[in-house]
Parts: sequence; structure tokens; C-alpha cells
Amino acid sequence: MKINGNYLNLQESYLFLTVAQKVEAFRRANPGKPVYRLGIGDVTLPLAPAVVAALKEASDEMGRAETFKGYGDYEGYGFLREAVCGYYAKKGVDLKPGEVFISDGAKSDLGNILDIFSNDNTVLIPDPVYPVYVDTNIMAGRRVMFMEGSEGNGFLPMPDNSVPADIIYLCSPNNPTGGVYDKEQLKAWVDYANGRGAVILFDGAYESFVRSEGLPTSIYEVDGARTCAIEFCSLSKTAGFTGTRCGYTVIPEGLERGGQPLNKLWLRRQSTKFNGVPYIIQRGAQAVFTETGMGQVRRNVDYYLANAKVIADALTEKGVWFTGGLNSPYIWLKCPGGMSSWQFFDYLLENANVVGTPGAGFGAAGEGFFRLTAFGGRENIEMAMRRFAGVI
Amino acid sequence: MKINGNYLNLQESYLFLTVAQKVEAFRRANPGKPVYRLGIGDVTLPLAPAVVAALKEASDEMGRAETFKGYGDYEGYGFLREAVCGYYAKKGVDLKPGEVFISDGAKSDLGNILDIFSNDNTVLIPDPVYPVYVDTNIMAGRRVMFMEGSEGNGFLPMPDNSVPADIIYLCSPNNPTGGVYDKEQLKAWVDYANGRGAVILFDGAYESFVRSEGLPTSIYEVDGARTCAIEFCSLSKTAGFTGTRCGYTVIPEGLERGGQPLNKLWLRRQSTKFNGVPYIIQRGAQAVFTETGMGQVRRNVDYYLANAKVIADALTEKGVWFTGGLNSPYIWLKCPGGMSSWQFFDYLLENANVVGTPGAGFGAAGEGFFRLTAFGGRENIEMAMRRFAGVI
Repeated sequence: MKINGNYLNLQESYLFLTVAQKVEAFRRANPGKPVYRLGIGDVTLPLAPAVVAALKEASDEMGRAETFKGYGDYEGYGFLREAVCGYYAKKGVDLKPGEVFISDGAKSDLGNILDIFSNDNTVLIPDPVYPVYVDTNIMAGRRVMFMEGSEGNGFLPMPDNSVPADIIYLCSPNNPTGGVYDKEQLKAWVDYANGRGAVILFDGAYESFVRSEGLPTSIYEVDGARTCAIEFCSLSKTAGFTGTRCGYTVIPEGLERGGQPLNKLWLRRQSTKFNGVPYIIQRGAQAVFTETGMGQVRRNVDYYLANAKVIADALTEKGVWFTGGLNSPYIWLKCPGGMSSWQFFDYLLENANVVGTPGAGFGAAGEGFFRLTAFGGRENIEMAMRRFAGVI
Repeated sequence: MKINGNYLNLQESYLFLTVAQKVEAFRRANPGKPVYRLGIGDVTLPLAPAVVAALKEASDEMGRAETFKGYGDYEGYGFLREAVCGYYAKKGVDLKPGEVFISDGAKSDLGNILDIFSNDNTVLIPDPVYPVYVDTNIMAGRRVMFMEGSEGNGFLPMPDNSVPADIIYLCSPNNPTGGVYDKEQLKAWVDYANGRGAVILFDGAYESFVRSEGLPTSIYEVDGARTCAIEFCSLSKTAGFTGTRCGYTVIPEGLERGGQPLNKLWLRRQSTKFNGVPYIIQRGAQAVFTETGMGQVRRNVDYYLANAKVIADALTEKGVWFTGGLNSPYIWLKCPGGMSSWQFFDYLLENANVVGTPGAGFGAAGEGFFRLTAFGGRENIEMAMRRFAGVI
């Protein structure tokens, strides 16, 4: 019996643990002093009333013999797949229900999708980025290359035809940088992928934060994406579903590699290793896509976006370089005075009692940068940014 | 870009599709004739009132800012892990909450657990059995060996020290045969696994159907199991959760391979590729383990067991050899008159208008056998068995 030795190549991340320990040490040394947390990576507003009503109605259905539901379809109920198609239609993207797979979240599918690809593929991952892209590939022993985000490219790295990638991760709006690719930039990625026969794994978990005219919220708004891209999305940030768990993955018909439709391979994976999302949760998710639900969840995202503007305005006033803050709940700033990520963390906690997340924790190219988030209450954020502005 | 070529080695199962097509053809040829379905592999009774109440209360909590829940622990909420420990304590099995991982079902975990083991391991799988054990290993390119169930061993194959297995699947009560290992038999498996340093993946999804005194409902009732066995369980059959999705996996502290605690490897896998079960569903699951909930779900299992007795009694009276029917919702019978599984399927459909599942669909050793299930309504089953008895 051998374990999967690739697990021993994983690096433990102590990012959030170290943040928590430093905050705790500060609190003990400064009893009674308030601490302002701008490091939260989770939604804070409750589920929309339309969603709660649907969840309760579905719970009642499950308690009556006539309306009880046993095993559902592995790929999700038709009513929800059709609702997702309706959502895409409003973006001008035409999808069939058979191209939509309902899941328990983008994170699960972003990891599990790798099952259908050979371990011999070479993977290209932005730096900095959401850490699970790297870890899921290390677990399978794949070769990982990084593409560097920087002040110069606005943390939106572009394709380099000399780089031989088979699987490419794009996250837009990006976590942690808040950067959003425009259509022309995505088109360059699509052309690169189609040219090489590579596959783009497009993480659109933050798409509902995009409000600027003309910016894409789906890679399928770009010509050619249907033959090279799989899109992962989630209601976690769109509708506050981080603890309710529902997402969806789009694999277009006609997206084939090695002569095999990826859609069919993924259905085989899911029908063998997954039994679908709870009926109750799928009914709650369906309510998100109704007119009432959409209005309610949009107001919540608006609230976070207004928080982000408070942060962005304070940084602009102080002349601090940053990305995000617009079309994203994240603000990614350059540490003032040439401080390293952790130096600035300590400085900010000590002098302004504000907590953020050191950019170095998201990849080597994040060193010297710092993430603030727009989740949480307005007053807390306003107070935090007044204190922040006072020390830089 | 290469796909995972192992997927091309998977055999498509047309078992349930062929059953559906044959039934449809029969209906078209015999309009108006009733068809009695004893092939259902899914629960039919609604969720218990205590569970529905908990689901609705938790839905309300999610709609209020003060009680809203975002991301939960990857391994499940403490309240549910403790409830599972309480359930095991009543079996005389002492578990710590840190040994219990909440999941969206036994099927997901039975497939995903393989991530932590090398693809070089050799796998031993009973035949006949639940097909996903085989498919999940084919997908990873592992070498699979089968151990044959037969009339002689009551479809409960025992270990053979000359067989060099690293990963062993046991399913007890078994799907599809309804066979249940006793403690002595499980002890032989535990000794074999500990002797070889192998790991047993113990699927206990049907444990709540075990009612005979002395039969184990957990492999941890057997000495030595903590150093070789991972147990997978689910509320799907215990509490009618097939469409509600909640299960749990137990990995004891001290279960190590290659110097690595498997518990820790699994937590790493889950924290990287999973974001936990919905809070609402976990509250519903917690309600199953309360005194009220346990009483309600037990009555449902009692109903299915009484159905199983109707089937078993009819077979006994007719002198048909079978396993299961007791301590299981499944009845596995030897096709009368030396018929093959599919011959008997056709014969039964044509002459008694009863639908079951051909045993050959669960593995080569299932040829000549046939599965009936105890889900569904009592009257339907009584009528079906009267008709069954009339034609054999």
C-alpha cells in the first residue's frame, strides 16, 4: 500500500493562520482596542428573502410523499439548468441545458475537472492567485508553470506563444487582485488556446461584481471560446451561497480533445463520483434567477461594491497604486514606502489597528502587495479607511 | 493536451437503460396492463417531520444577518460531527469528532478517497457489487482484482492470504446481495488487512437495516479495525436523504500508511477540493440523530424491512434460494429453472408483469441471479409477490 506521494510535495499555507495569530497577539497586548478587519474573504449579508422562501417550500415538499424527491440527476435538475441558460441569454450567450452542470460550488468542480485530463499535461497558472489551482495540480503530480502578474500588466498576464501550456487557469474578476480581463484580452487567450489545442479553465466566481459597460462576465462572450474553454461559476458571491453551496460548470458541446467530447467525459466523472446537489438547495438557487431574486441579490452585491468604493476612494486620495475596487470585492494595493507584504501587515495592525491580507500569501509575485476586501459592514470599513489614511 | 485515457477503458453500463427500454416495450405491447416495479434502488418515503422542521429553521437562520452562516468547516460542523459520535457511542464504538468527516454522500467520498492513495496500488473488489467501486479505480488506472460471491459463500467472500491486495472494498449489508458479514468474518478481513498493511474501505450505507442481534453495523465493532479501516456511511438509506445529500466518513486517528496519518491526508484533500455540506442540510442531518428524529427514521426503515419480509416469505414458500431480505432492503435470488439473469427478467415481466434487476448487471458472478428491492408501497409489493409466486 502506497499513499499518493504527491501530497508530500504540497506546501502548507500558514497565511490565514499567521494572520489570526498576529491579530490575537495584538489583542492580548492591547486589551480593549478595536481591531478593524478588512481581510474577510466571505460574504456577510444574509440570503435573499426569495431564496429563503424557496428553501422552506422545498423542505416542505420533501416532507410529503407526493412531492418527495429521491436521487436527482447527477448534472442537476432541468429547472435549474434552464434558469442558468436564461441568465446567460441575458449576457447574449446562448447555452443549452445539456451544457450546464450543477455542482456544490466552483471550488469542487475546479479541482475535480482535472480527473478527465491526463497527468502529463502542463499547467499554466497566474501568480498571484487563489491557491487551490496550484494545490490540485501538485496533488496529481502535474508540471505547473506560473505567469507573473505585476504593476506593469495590471496583474492581468497575457499569453506568450513560446509557453507550451495545455491547461490554463484564468480568474476574472481575479482573486486576490480584483483585475478584470476585457474582451480583447480574453480573445488573445482564446486564440492562444485554440492555436495550441489547450483548454482554458475560466473561473468566473466573481462575475456578478462586474458593472462597467463592455467588460465580459463570461468567456463565451468572446468568439472561439466554445472550442477551448470550460467556465466555472458559483452562487457563493453572486447570492451569498458560501454556506449554502451551489455552483455550475459550463462545458460547451463541440469542445473536444483527443477526439472525445469533454462534456461527455465530465458527465461520466460526475455520474461515478457525485450524486448531485440537494433538491432543496437547487430550488433555492432557482429562486436567485427569478426577477425578484435577481433584484434582491443585486442589491447585496451593490452594497459590497459601495464598500469597495469607500476603500478605493481612500487609496486614490492618498495616491496609493491599486487594482480592483471596481467590478470586484477585492482591492489589491502596492505597499507604501517599499514595505514587504508582511511588514505592511504589521505596520497597519500596529498603527491603524486594521487587518488585511499580505499579498505574498497568494504567490511569489504578490510580494510587496496587500489585499483588502469589501465584505462586512459599511461603518467598519469607513472607520478602518479613516484610520488607514491617517498612517500612510 | 491529453485527456485521461483511462476513461476510455470504462465500460458503459446499460443495465438500467435496458431495463427501462424493455419495460417501455412491454407497456406499448400491452396497453393498460399494470406493471409492478421491484427494481427501485431509491427510498420512497418522505423526510421525517423532525428533519423538515430543522431544515426550515436553518433556512430562516440563513435569512437573518445575526444567524447567517458563510463558509463552514471543510470537515463539517462540530454539532453534526458530535451527533455522529453519539450515534456510534450507542453501538459501543468510541469516536472523536476529529475522526468524522461530513460529506455530501458515501458515493462521493468512496470515489474521492482514492485521491490520497497511489495509483500503483492493487484493488480487491467483491463481485457482484455496487459498480462505482470498479469504475473509480479504472479511471485512475489501478489494477483491479475481483473476489467472487457465490451460493457457496452466501455472496460474502472471505480473504485469501495469497491475494496481494492493497485496497479492499467491503459493503455490508451488501448492495445488491443483501448479505451481511458477522463479526468473526469481519475480523478475518481486519486481520488480513493489518497483516498486509492494506486498507479496507468499508461501505456501511445500509447499516440502519441491520436488526439481528450481534451483527455489526460498523467495522469498528471489530478489534483491530482502527488501524486498517475507513468507514463510509450515509443518511441516504438511514433517513431517506438520497435527494438531500449528507453522509459521513470515519478515518480513525492512528490509521497511518507510509508514515502518514490518513486522516490528515484526507483533510488536505477535502480542504483543497471541497467546501463542505450546506449548513441547512447539516442541521437537517443533526435532527436525524435526536431522539425524536431517530424514532421517526427507524419507523421508515421498519416499513421497508416489513416489505422485504413480504418478498422473503414468498420466496421461502416457493423454495427459491436467496440472500438478504433480512437486515437489508435487497433480496438476491437464484433464478429458477437455471434461467440466466436476463432470461428471468423477460420471463417475469412477460408472465407476472413484475420488474426486477438482472444480477448479471452487478458483475460476472451475478449471472443467474436477480435483485428485488423493498422500497415502494406495501400493496404494490404484496400484489407483485402474489403474481411472482403464481409463475414459478
